[in-house]
Amino acid sequence: MPVNLSAPDPASLLPVAGVRLGIASAGIKKPGRRDVTLIELAPGSRVAGVFTQNRFCAAPVTLCRQHLASGNIRALLINTGNANAGTGEEGLRRARQTCEAVAGILGCAPEQVLPFSTGVILEPLPVDRILPVLPAAQADLTATHWSEAAHAIMTTDIVAKAASRQASVGGKTVTVTGMAKGSGMIHPNMATMLGFLATDAAISQTLLDSLVREIADLSFNCVTVDGDTSTNDSFILIASGQAGNTEITDANTPDYAALKAAISEVAIELAQAMARDGEGATKFMTIQVEQGRDRAECKQIAYAIARSPLVKTAFFASDPNLGRILAAIGYAGVMDLDVNTLQVYLGDVLVAENGGRAASYSEAQGAAVMKQAEITIRVVLHRGSASATVWTCDFSYDYVKINAEYRT
Amino acid sequence: MPVNLSAPDPASLLPVAGVRLGIASAGIKKPGRRDVTLIELAPGSRVAGVFTQNRFCAAPVTLCRQHLASGNIRALLINTGNANAGTGEEGLRRARQTCEAVAGILGCAPEQVLPFSTGVILEPLPVDRILPVLPAAQADLTATHWSEAAHAIMTTDIVAKAASRQASVGGKTVTVTGMAKGSGMIHPNMATMLGFLATDAAISQTLLDSLVREIADLSFNCVTVDGDTSTNDSFILIASGQAGNTEITDANTPDYAALKAAISEVAIELAQAMARDGEGATKFMTIQVEQGRDRAECKQIAYAIARSPLVKTAFFASDPNLGRILAAIGYAGVMDLDVNTLQVYLGDVLVAENGGRAASYSEAQGAAVMKQAEITIRVVLHRGSASATVWTCDFSYDYVKINAEYRT
Repeated sequence: MPVNLSAPDPASLLPVAGVRLGIASAGIKKPGRRDVTLIELAPGSRVAGVFTQNRFCAAPVTLCRQHLASGNIRALLINTGNANAGTGEEGLRRARQTCEAVAGILGCAPEQVLPFSTGVILEPLPVDRILPVLPAAQADLTATHWSEAAHAIMTTDIVAKAASRQASVGGKTVTVTGMAKGSGMIHPNMATMLGFLATDAAISQTLLDSLVREIADLSFNCVTVDGDTSTNDSFILIASGQAGNTEITDANTPDYAALKAAISEVAIELAQAMARDGEGATKFMTIQVEQGRDRAECKQIAYAIARSPLVKTAFFASDPNLGRILAAIGYAGVMDLDVNTLQVYLGDVLVAENGGRAASYSEAQGAAVMKQAEITIRVVLHRGSASATVWTCDFSYDYVKINAEYRT
Repeated sequence: MPVNLSAPDPASLLPVAGVRLGIASAGIKKPGRRDVTLIELAPGSRVAGVFTQNRFCAAPVTLCRQHLASGNIRALLINTGNANAGTGEEGLRRARQTCEAVAGILGCAPEQVLPFSTGVILEPLPVDRILPVLPAAQADLTATHWSEAAHAIMTTDIVAKAASRQASVGGKTVTVTGMAKGSGMIHPNMATMLGFLATDAAISQTLLDSLVREIADLSFNCVTVDGDTSTNDSFILIASGQAGNTEITDANTPDYAALKAAISEVAIELAQAMARDGEGATKFMTIQVEQGRDRAECKQIAYAIARSPLVKTAFFASDPNLGRILAAIGYAGVMDLDVNTLQVYLGDVLVAENGGRAASYSEAQGAAVMKQAEITIRVVLHRGSASATVWTCDFSYDYVKINAEYRT
């Protein structure tokens, strides 16, 4: 069950001027399932994206990279139920077909359409089911359909993930609304399994391109469910430019800072939602590694803990089996790490120092923290000033059940 | 349940001249459990070892490294039920105490004793229970106790792991007998969670030191159960020199090749036994990556597949969800990998080529292979002549159950 997570109130999801969303049902995996989402962008919108580093990247990811390079994007098409990954040349052909169909309907070029797919790998994309429902998706286009779209892009997700924020930029109120999906095969490397954020702020393409990377690194790139990096990870940032603010062209301005803060908040909320709704999750864990030499070593240690099946099953059992955390720190690959100078905290409780259990630690203290649904593990390295945070969930019977029964 | 694995017939385990084993019961974890093993080596025996690269290595590992450096080892002491890891200075003091006690009984120096521990991390070693039973272990010393010792070093292992081989070296018959334990926290890096091999062959210390590394790399370093590298991994190779062969001093001789072959066979059998008896295992998987540029990239890809929770749960379900294998190949980190030229086989069935599903592949073929208890996944990279093999097991409800209930 998702940990402290419920679907957002549709009324809390603010429309973004220049962005309309329409849903249709192609029955790709299940008959009647609303599984196709069309997003239409007003002319002049700017789009930036980051994608999976998986070498077996999906056909739509390849096309997204190509189309983003030519710029001037006017639409996004998202299907669930089929990933169009591990599908070779034929997969690219089929993804192109969907872009052409959208372009025909909206009156733009196929290169102005970005395609996204999520679902089972190694199966041909059923274009014969998708193309006929595109007119229905177009007819459904409206700025208030964020909640419907967040539901339509889910796979093994239990809860739809979307959020909004507003900020004041150059005296104008700008809106940021985003949605994401992801519950398994989650260990994003550059981006996550489908995240879409839109703002009506005006910002230059150059800044948008760097902002999307900065945001990914602070949010979606800090989540892991099972250590499996998907073939389809895509994180897209859209700026429609309709808020009326003077275009942001400089990163060293209060306007950029205000916009970045609002976008970060939405992205982090969505990234955390993925771990809260991680497959089989019963606990939400924050791993914070502090006072490291650089961010890379902090992240390496945080991920070693977050990926360890032994740590994750101990948290599922609410068992303060903290030796497993020490073992993960020890094998994280930071070879000159001195384990005698670091400290490990579970919540506020000091667990380990001087290479062993803290003298003040008692099993009762550990057990009390372990009972909570949200737990922070803090590792203080005492060798620098860098830090990193990773969010994850525990490893339960249900993770095995979901993945023994579902075809991703 | 272990996959095609049963405890060896005690009569099949050949004594090694110069090596005697004695068992005693200290009740470290459970009253009455036979949990202390003493191995006594004849004077002139040579010993080499490789140990975990985990920075949180256990106190006994630290002592083993020190004592091996001074050479002339006369005894090994192994306890199960407590890992003496994450125990700081006090852990070293207690491990030293056990060495001193053994030295007192056998009449040697404490530096001639190698200590080994396995079990729960972060708990003080109960020396008050171990020391009093050492005389009983000594009284039990005999060359035929390999089977008893293999049982006495188990933790979550279901089946005891030991094997023997003989080879002809310089006209003399030499014997190799080994035992190992390990079922969870298995992802050895240099060695595994306790493996002990003994031979009566005479071989120079220099060759023994390099041989132990070569063997580890071919056997224990090719196994993973859960991707967690233990704090206590130790692999020890003993040569008592009592077979009467002329001492082997050159690696380019038939004698060295014959001995290495016999030792490899025992080590590989024990390493595979660990995956067969992996926690919760229902399937034994061999991942073979061929025609790579170098062994490192082959191993990287093999481990990505072997560690993927998604691949492992699909095998548990006997579901030919092969897209998950492609995804793991894609994120293994070989960044210049061309996924369009590689091939993936499941058993003898060609599954993927040209970046997608093979035209000849049918779901029925995949399902037939998936039903087997032992399955080989073969990835042919077509970019060189290197290869690597990794053994692992699937990921089942029982893995979660075992690790939610047991304190490693």
